Amino acid sequence: MDNTNMKRLTAIPVALLLLSPLFADEGMWPMSEIHRLNLASKGLQVPVQVIYNPKGVSLIDGIVNIGGCTGSFVSPDGLILTNHHCAFSAIQEASTPERNYLENGFLAKTRDLEVAAKGQTVRITESYRDVSSEVLAVVQPGMEPGARTKAIEKRIKEIVLDTEAKNPGKRAEVSEMFIGKSYVLFIYTYLKDVRLVYAPPRSIGEYGGETDNWNWPRHTGDFSFFRAYVAPDGGSADYSTANVPYHPRRHIKVAPSGVAEGDLVFILGYPGRTYRHRTASYLDFEYRVRMPFTVEWYGWQINLMEAAGKADPAVALKVAPRVKGLSNTFKNNQGKLVGIRRADLLGKKRQEEKALADFIQADPQRKAKYGTVLAEIGSVYAQAEAAVPREFLLQFLTRSPEALRVAFTAYEAARERQKPDVERESSYMDRNWKQTSSRLVLSLRNFDRGVDEAILRNLLVRAAKLNAIPALRPILGNGQGSDIDRFLNQAYGATRIHDGKIVEDLLKKKPEDLDLFDDPFVQLASKLYPEVQAMKEAEKRREGDLNRLYSLYLDVKKDFLGRDFVPDANSTLRLTYGHIKGYEPRDAVFMHPITTLGGVVEKHTGEDPFVAPEGLMELHRKKDFGPFAPPKLGDVPVGILYDTDTTGGNSGSPVFNGRGELVGVNFDRVWEATINDYGWSALYSRSIAVDIRYVLWVALKFSGADHLLKEMGVKTN
Amino acid sequence: MDNTNMKRLTAIPVALLLLSPLFADEGMWPMSEIHRLNLASKGLQVPVQVIYNPKGVSLIDGIVNIGGCTGSFVSPDGLILTNHHCAFSAIQEASTPERNYLENGFLAKTRDLEVAAKGQTVRITESYRDVSSEVLAVVQPGMEPGARTKAIEKRIKEIVLDTEAKNPGKRAEVSEMFIGKSYVLFIYTYLKDVRLVYAPPRSIGEYGGETDNWNWPRHTGDFSFFRAYVAPDGGSADYSTANVPYHPRRHIKVAPSGVAEGDLVFILGYPGRTYRHRTASYLDFEYRVRMPFTVEWYGWQINLMEAAGKADPAVALKVAPRVKGLSNTFKNNQGKLVGIRRADLLGKKRQEEKALADFIQADPQRKAKYGTVLAEIGSVYAQAEAAVPREFLLQFLTRSPEALRVAFTAYEAARERQKPDVERESSYMDRNWKQTSSRLVLSLRNFDRGVDEAILRNLLVRAAKLNAIPALRPILGNGQGSDIDRFLNQAYGATRIHDGKIVEDLLKKKPEDLDLFDDPFVQLASKLYPEVQAMKEAEKRREGDLNRLYSLYLDVKKDFLGRDFVPDANSTLRLTYGHIKGYEPRDAVFMHPITTLGGVVEKHTGEDPFVAPEGLMELHRKKDFGPFAPPKLGDVPVGILYDTDTTGGNSGSPVFNGRGELVGVNFDRVWEATINDYGWSALYSRSIAVDIRYVLWVALKFSGADHLLKEMGVKTN
Repeated sequence: MDNTNMKRLTAIPVALLLLSPLFADEGMWPMSEIHRLNLASKGLQVPVQVIYNPKGVSLIDGIVNIGGCTGSFVSPDGLILTNHHCAFSAIQEASTPERNYLENGFLAKTRDLEVAAKGQTVRITESYRDVSSEVLAVVQPGMEPGARTKAIEKRIKEIVLDTEAKNPGKRAEVSEMFIGKSYVLFIYTYLKDVRLVYAPPRSIGEYGGETDNWNWPRHTGDFSFFRAYVAPDGGSADYSTANVPYHPRRHIKVAPSGVAEGDLVFILGYPGRTYRHRTASYLDFEYRVRMPFTVEWYGWQINLMEAAGKADPAVALKVAPRVKGLSNTFKNNQGKLVGIRRADLLGKKRQEEKALADFIQADPQRKAKYGTVLAEIGSVYAQAEAAVPREFLLQFLTRSPEALRVAFTAYEAARERQKPDVERESSYMDRNWKQTSSRLVLSLRNFDRGVDEAILRNLLVRAAKLNAIPALRPILGNGQGSDIDRFLNQAYGATRIHDGKIVEDLLKKKPEDLDLFDDPFVQLASKLYPEVQAMKEAEKRREGDLNRLYSLYLDVKKDFLGRDFVPDANSTLRLTYGHIKGYEPRDAVFMHPITTLGGVVEKHTGEDPFVAPEGLMELHRKKDFGPFAPPKLGDVPVGILYDTDTTGGNSGSPVFNGRGELVGVNFDRVWEATINDYGWSALYSRSIAVDIRYVLWVALKFSGADHLLKEMGVKTN
Repeated sequence: MDNTNMKRLTAIPVALLLLSPLFADEGMWPMSEIHRLNLASKGLQVPVQVIYNPKGVSLIDGIVNIGGCTGSFVSPDGLILTNHHCAFSAIQEASTPERNYLENGFLAKTRDLEVAAKGQTVRITESYRDVSSEVLAVVQPGMEPGARTKAIEKRIKEIVLDTEAKNPGKRAEVSEMFIGKSYVLFIYTYLKDVRLVYAPPRSIGEYGGETDNWNWPRHTGDFSFFRAYVAPDGGSADYSTANVPYHPRRHIKVAPSGVAEGDLVFILGYPGRTYRHRTASYLDFEYRVRMPFTVEWYGWQINLMEAAGKADPAVALKVAPRVKGLSNTFKNNQGKLVGIRRADLLGKKRQEEKALADFIQADPQRKAKYGTVLAEIGSVYAQAEAAVPREFLLQFLTRSPEALRVAFTAYEAARERQKPDVERESSYMDRNWKQTSSRLVLSLRNFDRGVDEAILRNLLVRAAKLNAIPALRPILGNGQGSDIDRFLNQAYGATRIHDGKIVEDLLKKKPEDLDLFDDPFVQLASKLYPEVQAMKEAEKRREGDLNRLYSLYLDVKKDFLGRDFVPDANSTLRLTYGHIKGYEPRDAVFMHPITTLGGVVEKHTGEDPFVAPEGLMELHRKKDFGPFAPPKLGDVPVGILYDTDTTGGNSGSPVFNGRGELVGVNFDRVWEATINDYGWSALYSRSIAVDIRYVLWVALKFSGADHLLKEMGVKTN
């Protein structure tokens, strides 16, 4: 699924570089560039200003960021359409065993029945401006690389704090557009009263579950509706019954006629991160080192949790969200490994880079300036690779076992919060501290000693073998399993770290108190802290080197191509266009680009995750399709496939037809298209949306949400 | 894979009924009927007499039965083309650790280097005749059903023995064409000197292994070549260097130009068993009871053996053939369950049967004669179902754990061989005893105590729960796991049943000696024997009932349809025709009907079963395709797909083009087409062959077998 990690989200739209001809493997266009794309020749039937108009209201004003996802206003009264998986935790939070909205779905028949989506916010972009020179002013030639990283980070924080001070109630973010080159400041409004309006049951919204995730053909009704509310004066406000629906500057019209094979589609959304302006040495490191490690370690954890869940249903409930998250990343990394190999991405990258190297060598001046850049970047990744066994272990020790993760975060927080605000890691800054600390306490809900102990045991056995983390030596003894077991048994027996009250208390303490605090995991965290700090310093030095080197790399790449190019995705607003189009994932296999309700019924086995509601199957038997089945298909379209360029963060993005009307809600990519992070491929890059006709049909026929169709201006017969 | 169980194989061709228009779901045509098919209008470019000519030589004279498979003579010198999986054990037998033909492939560069394929025989049909009246003469009206079964079995054996006595050196078989209605006697010659000529390495011949078995798209080079030899006088003879190549009456010409999408193809071969002339109650029983049980029990054994194999490579080697066999059946049954549901086969069958029931009710005379037939057949399957828990357990106790299987077979053999020859179970008759006993001893090669103990333990735990097999009570004690473990520990510690010498000795003993023989498994077999006998008697009674009832059912079905129809497959020679044609296995997925060498390379991961030989990948990189890549494809075709009607036993069948030339070697069906056993489906029934162009290309370019192409009359450039 294509939502992004919250931590990765930074800011909204618009890039900086003027660009000329298209660069084949790039398709996530900043708004400032889309007038150059000649979209009319591709099938756009409205002026490009309808999409983006810096001087007035345009479609982009109907797009919001909601959690890690994208959403669209689809009515003048602040109705928002996004993915079911983006609304998942809001639906879960609103559910009780008696009113299980996750299982049964939820529909507010009237506005007063819409329920608060706790913690859910809607982010609207107010303005943005280039702050590259302000940021880069702190960089001195010949600066020590770690100091360079820290100076840039600090300056960005200063700009953010200053901006927020001048704009009370707003949030500020600075987005790096090109490493070491350009930065944009965004100012956002956050709407805080967001309510759940309509969600189909899980058996529709999650149909196919993990099995179908990253897969085509797809039959998931991955959509939900929220509504944003504001104070009667129109300002952002916390939940109150006195609040009124928000009226967006612009809302998106849905198109009940949908799309057909070959039609132009375009997407507006907030793609999270891509890595296309990186070297072959980077991709090689990811492909050889990080992805196989992730597949191995995540796969092991998934197996562990599934086995524990099979043995005890209570454990199964606790580990379910983690299994879901781990599986998503696991399958994504598996897909990348396959896709990179099949599309020979590394070979192509090396070929391109060979041409760039030849170009550098061909001119003495260029050679003098850039002659060592590629090799130097390569050597940074080589350093990173040499450090991998120890660094991965330290990272996952403080991340995978809950007990140690919570203890370590509390300890690190105490240390960081001693520093001046702008020198802290972002999550410990005053402006983020409330969220960081409440999430930490909340995360303890799903603690399970058996699973946690097994995870830590696995890491300690690895650590004993590696024998390179001095802080662990007292625990590991002579490295025998029995020593490790003795420690685990004692530590998990004695700790109270899984108690929310204790953690809340810990978060108020000073580091020197924690150094003496009588809990085995707090003690271990205090011992590990200096080693983790040293590792982070090393990372910052590598980052500083790369910041300097990639700035040079981008300069010479621009010379080489004789033109500008678009920045990597960085959670800012982008447009990508393409066409409704099938693909051949493998020899002799062709995938049609539109799936049907018949396919939903066909997949139904009665076993999770393929349990279609009986009511839905009955409607299919009766061919009660309303106006949503195109005659040629004779069935309701469910999923659509298209060759746009998307990545994580594009979940919930509206898919538009040539008239700028909404025809689908983007939610995933095909497995092979996980390589989009490194390059777009005409053969394999396909993204997946739920067809608006399925959204409307389910809403109308299955759930009886006539009033919502009316609100969206859709006829129901 | 589409070979059949040896035990199921009975005899060769040609059916009896005259038939008029086509019956939609039947496509396995006896030779006597093919002149009615108007094959010319389907694309046949030669007279139908070229295929089958009762008065002369025709293509069918080039077809043989080889093991459980079909094969074709492809040269005047007795060269036989069949599947790699049909030659598997012959290749394995000929291999040594130093000359591992399975891994590395085998090619005899000259005829004197061709190696004996021990135990392999080639069966050629000499003649056949209808013996229905002779067989059915023993049936008396009102006969007790068990007696009816036994009388028919005995009469068949008498006919066989009598025929063999009159035709020294030949084998006779009687095939039941329609239950309780018609029987044909076949006389066969067996050629006993069969030699391995050429087999590609496993990495080609088994490429894709279990993962791809029953799957499309397919990239398996599932072919091998044998040669049949005879005595200098032309008679069948055991292996001797004095023997000479056999000259078949007719050989099949291979067509290096292959086929294209839409082309007519037809297949000649020995499909094993279908069950189309059975009632809905039969299919319901299979679908609800037998298939799920098979999937559960075989799946459990596969998991067990794979886990044991992972822990110990020596065990992995031992269990490999069993895992292969179990997996083939497991996946076949899984496919049936899916296919029957998707094609709604049971629903269609019930609908057809409803029409038949209405037809019966509509006429008082018909009602009097057939009014209870459907209900009576249903009640036989209801009896079978009631007996299932106990009968399945008894069957698998004497089949799945090797120790008890061997002991039980030895015990049963001793009992049976006390009886007159014609009253024994077929495998214990004198004419079969040598093979039965040598196979039993041979099967001990792969005995593994750990695996065997776990299998028997599982069955004993089930038996304890069921508590319906008195012979087991002393072992099961109070039904606790600890009692069972105690028995297993003692029994496997004490038994010597896994010693071939002991078993050879046992096979010479009388039942009363075995009753006293001091081995825990022989003792258990002797205790179980009366219960198994009683079960077999019950089966024979049900069979006798069905024999009588299906005879009536077929009569009224014929009245209802107003015409004759073809008999179910029964390992006799059949023709099936169709076209090179893709299919849609699922919503939005289309499968092209021709795969390519590029697909072989694409599937290569370097991990078993997807390790393509480097030499093959190099040839693909160099596009060294010889004359075998059609310009439109620009690559060598590897697999072909077509909508003929095949089943187990069609493995190795030649696939012909409209000119009666060989364009492929049939070896499998798609997963959904496992339902062919119960009905052919235009949507799902697709069979799979290795394309002759791949066979020739691998032989020429990869293996340098120029001389074989020359022998087949194929140009090499």
